[in-house]
Amino acid sequence: MNKSELKIYPLGGVGEIGSNMTVFETENHLCIIDYGILFPYDDFFDINYLIPDTSNINEEKEITLFITHGHEDHIGAVHHFLMEFPQTKVLAPRFAAKLIHKKLEQRKMSRKILEYKEEDSFDFDQFSLHPIHVTHSIPHTFGLVFKSQDFATLFISDFKYDLNPIFEKPFNTQKIKDLFANAKTKLAFLDSTNILNPGKTISESEITADLSEILATKKRTFITLFASNVYRMKNILELAKKHNRKVTTIGRSIQSYLDAAEEAELLKREDYPLKDFDAIENYNDPNLLYVITGSQGEHLGATRRIVNGDQKHITLTENDQFVFSSKPIPGNEKKIYKLYNQIAQTDCKLITFKDKNIHASGHPSQEDLKSLVSEIEPTHYIPIHGETYFLKEHVKFINTHFPQIETFFLTNYDGIDIKDGKINHFSLASVDPHLIHGRDLIIEREKISERRKMACNGVVFVSINHKTKNIAFETKGLPIEADSYKARLVDLVEFQAFTELKSRDYDYIVEQIRIKIRTSYNHFLGYKPITIVQMV
Amino acid sequence: MNKSELKIYPLGGVGEIGSNMTVFETENHLCIIDYGILFPYDDFFDINYLIPDTSNINEEKEITLFITHGHEDHIGAVHHFLMEFPQTKVLAPRFAAKLIHKKLEQRKMSRKILEYKEEDSFDFDQFSLHPIHVTHSIPHTFGLVFKSQDFATLFISDFKYDLNPIFEKPFNTQKIKDLFANAKTKLAFLDSTNILNPGKTISESEITADLSEILATKKRTFITLFASNVYRMKNILELAKKHNRKVTTIGRSIQSYLDAAEEAELLKREDYPLKDFDAIENYNDPNLLYVITGSQGEHLGATRRIVNGDQKHITLTENDQFVFSSKPIPGNEKKIYKLYNQIAQTDCKLITFKDKNIHASGHPSQEDLKSLVSEIEPTHYIPIHGETYFLKEHVKFINTHFPQIETFFLTNYDGIDIKDGKINHFSLASVDPHLIHGRDLIIEREKISERRKMACNGVVFVSINHKTKNIAFETKGLPIEADSYKARLVDLVEFQAFTELKSRDYDYIVEQIRIKIRTSYNHFLGYKPITIVQMV
Repeated sequence: MNKSELKIYPLGGVGEIGSNMTVFETENHLCIIDYGILFPYDDFFDINYLIPDTSNINEEKEITLFITHGHEDHIGAVHHFLMEFPQTKVLAPRFAAKLIHKKLEQRKMSRKILEYKEEDSFDFDQFSLHPIHVTHSIPHTFGLVFKSQDFATLFISDFKYDLNPIFEKPFNTQKIKDLFANAKTKLAFLDSTNILNPGKTISESEITADLSEILATKKRTFITLFASNVYRMKNILELAKKHNRKVTTIGRSIQSYLDAAEEAELLKREDYPLKDFDAIENYNDPNLLYVITGSQGEHLGATRRIVNGDQKHITLTENDQFVFSSKPIPGNEKKIYKLYNQIAQTDCKLITFKDKNIHASGHPSQEDLKSLVSEIEPTHYIPIHGETYFLKEHVKFINTHFPQIETFFLTNYDGIDIKDGKINHFSLASVDPHLIHGRDLIIEREKISERRKMACNGVVFVSINHKTKNIAFETKGLPIEADSYKARLVDLVEFQAFTELKSRDYDYIVEQIRIKIRTSYNHFLGYKPITIVQMV
Repeated sequence: MNKSELKIYPLGGVGEIGSNMTVFETENHLCIIDYGILFPYDDFFDINYLIPDTSNINEEKEITLFITHGHEDHIGAVHHFLMEFPQTKVLAPRFAAKLIHKKLEQRKMSRKILEYKEEDSFDFDQFSLHPIHVTHSIPHTFGLVFKSQDFATLFISDFKYDLNPIFEKPFNTQKIKDLFANAKTKLAFLDSTNILNPGKTISESEITADLSEILATKKRTFITLFASNVYRMKNILELAKKHNRKVTTIGRSIQSYLDAAEEAELLKREDYPLKDFDAIENYNDPNLLYVITGSQGEHLGATRRIVNGDQKHITLTENDQFVFSSKPIPGNEKKIYKLYNQIAQTDCKLITFKDKNIHASGHPSQEDLKSLVSEIEPTHYIPIHGETYFLKEHVKFINTHFPQIETFFLTNYDGIDIKDGKINHFSLASVDPHLIHGRDLIIEREKISERRKMACNGVVFVSINHKTKNIAFETKGLPIEADSYKARLVDLVEFQAFTELKSRDYDYIVEQIRIKIRTSYNHFLGYKPITIVQMV
């Protein structure tokens, strides 16, 4: 690469939702934007998460990890990255830096995370990076402009175009316009999450009225929301104070986000009528507000615990109201409907985004994108942060409303190369994200497939003592009706091992027995259990 | 019970979606409405389906199984019922009867299913049952009125209030009004599926225009829909004929529903330009229409196969259009979005219910219910066919719009007892539906829990020869990195078994080794694999 060349390639988050990672590569530098996790599909059996592969990272260059904001799909895998590339310089906004520190502390990794502010800028060969303050659903979210003399790239992975937010400045359109001013080529990478939504995303400030009305109602109240949405939490605390409510929280993640928020000077707990859950005198006080986690129906979340009746001191009744200040993420609908059903069963009043203005999305709808794009006037455009279908719809949308803009369709492992004023396309060999389970360990896909086979077919274990002819036979995950079948199979194994198969080749005998057991079960069950036979 | 007494109790389908079963019990009779399956949640590991428990069925009475229509959540478990209660008399509408016959044939069960028509009626002690023709998303769907002199119950589990359907008569409101005419107490059980939808459900006839426009487009076309929606299929075939298209189908279930439809004289294949898939000369012919299954993203469905590129002769390109004549069932969104993404990736044109009027629901929206209830004027009302949240919203809806009607909230295992003009409530002890896997066998929930533990933690299997001290050690579903740990553990087992634990109690030794292996792995992996140690 020469001094004025720039390559940009996403290795995560484009063509899928989650595990965001995009590389800006110059002659001597790799500036990597975010390194987040992908939340697993249901059928990965309790794995923790997925992380992007890093085999395309060229270690000979200086590596900078630039974090845009503190959501897990942007910072969740930073510790994995630092274990692999300890030489990395990490730049993060204040709140994200606090959150990353917590993550590293838990793993006894001590690393300095450099906090950046909007007025900072960073040089990478002939390019400079300029953070742009944007609004989203977590404090301290930034986009960035990466520019040289006549070329400027705007990259905003997650944002909403909120011009009237709460507790923070509006989206900084002016800085983008200033940085774009002299550039000939102006390339924008923008968020596709809500591209199918017509209209405008409501401002975070527009939910205050309905939240206030709900908190004015004399009913014991539960509000579940994403704990990372600190400004919304702060808004709720302010309203609770206004309505003379007592407040307590349930869920470790709320405590942990509140800790980080205090460290980042976003709020002070002492300003609010907050009480420890264990210090509450009357858990049924109609004046009490419970702020809780688990709005997506998470397995161990406080919402599910309360709704299941597993939270000590709390039983939902018709005197309560339960507020979901959230919207189901696609894939969670069934889990969340189950919660709705259980709440309905208790006669507690249920309030969701369908009933009141109590949730504002953190992403731009079609009209927001139109306004922003009209203001900043990019010459080139690449949709990011979305599944393929959304990216394609986003391309169509821009082509329809801004025919003068040149659009590109990219997914992970596609890249663009900007050299001598020209933009070229290239592709890297793609690698599936890695599955992480347990103590930050990678588990291979073929092992997940073994797990699936055991779960779908049950398991049979047989030990044979080749000397004493003892046989042990055990099953896991087979129907009780199949137990009646066991004695017959033990006889069969004995017969095969010691009478019929007069071979000295134990491997052969073991394999024949294994096949026979599976075939016999298949006859009875209609499927073949995973069968392990050991001759010792 | 006395001669004029009636008990009505749902044992499935009320408080959940699926496995419909409601009992109408009189002095000497049990008239059971439907016996269907519940589709499993994702985390039940490939089990076939769930079926309602029958321990509340009093075998001393005469049992009649009255089938309302041929959907699997109404007929899917009939063969289980007949295995348990072979004396049952089964009454079904023609199309459902053909479908049940196929199910029994596959299992080599030969049973007569009696076909009923709308003009039939059946006596149960002092009560009579009258089928009511209703519209839905499968041909030959019936509601029923169960009545005595001054008491009449209307029961319609699944319906839409379609007054302008295709290929069939409109919903028969008049017959209900006639049967209700002289009754003092008029109780209605009605469908809650779409109770959250304001407005009216569009008629099946209203999708013809957009489907026609799509088929007039000169592009190779794929339409995916529920194979059981025979009138829609017939409509599509008519339109294909009109636009001089050739048609072929992919998916065994389409063939099987078409067979049943021909037997029930609902259509004749020879009337349409249908060709066997294998007989197609040019699979890329832009004039070709593929009618396929798998619209919900089913694992083995034709839609997924085509989209994954696993269907021989078919590769999607920009010259194709792919039409989803369906809507995601809650819980399937993620699977279906994955299909959308893959289709978008191929540049094939994707058309969903969001783009065009190509799907009509089979259930009534709020305005439909209002119209029907205004017409038939029940005095009492019980919402059915829905999850708890929907049932409660349905109760609220009726209370708001028809305050004169007395509403009841029931879920499975709740019942009402009608005696001397009074309605009383009672409850039965509830039993969870049974899980069916493989060859129609019940698998217990604790066995599913064993399967889950194996899938989430992997398995270690150890055999020890107590004489020769041979040890065999094998793992399934553990990360490759854990292999390096194996040798150390074999040493540990050997040491424990033959040196440290100088006990003669093999059970004790085996248990100590098992615990040690799990603890050691936990240290390394962060979770404890299921461990089976056998000493032989």
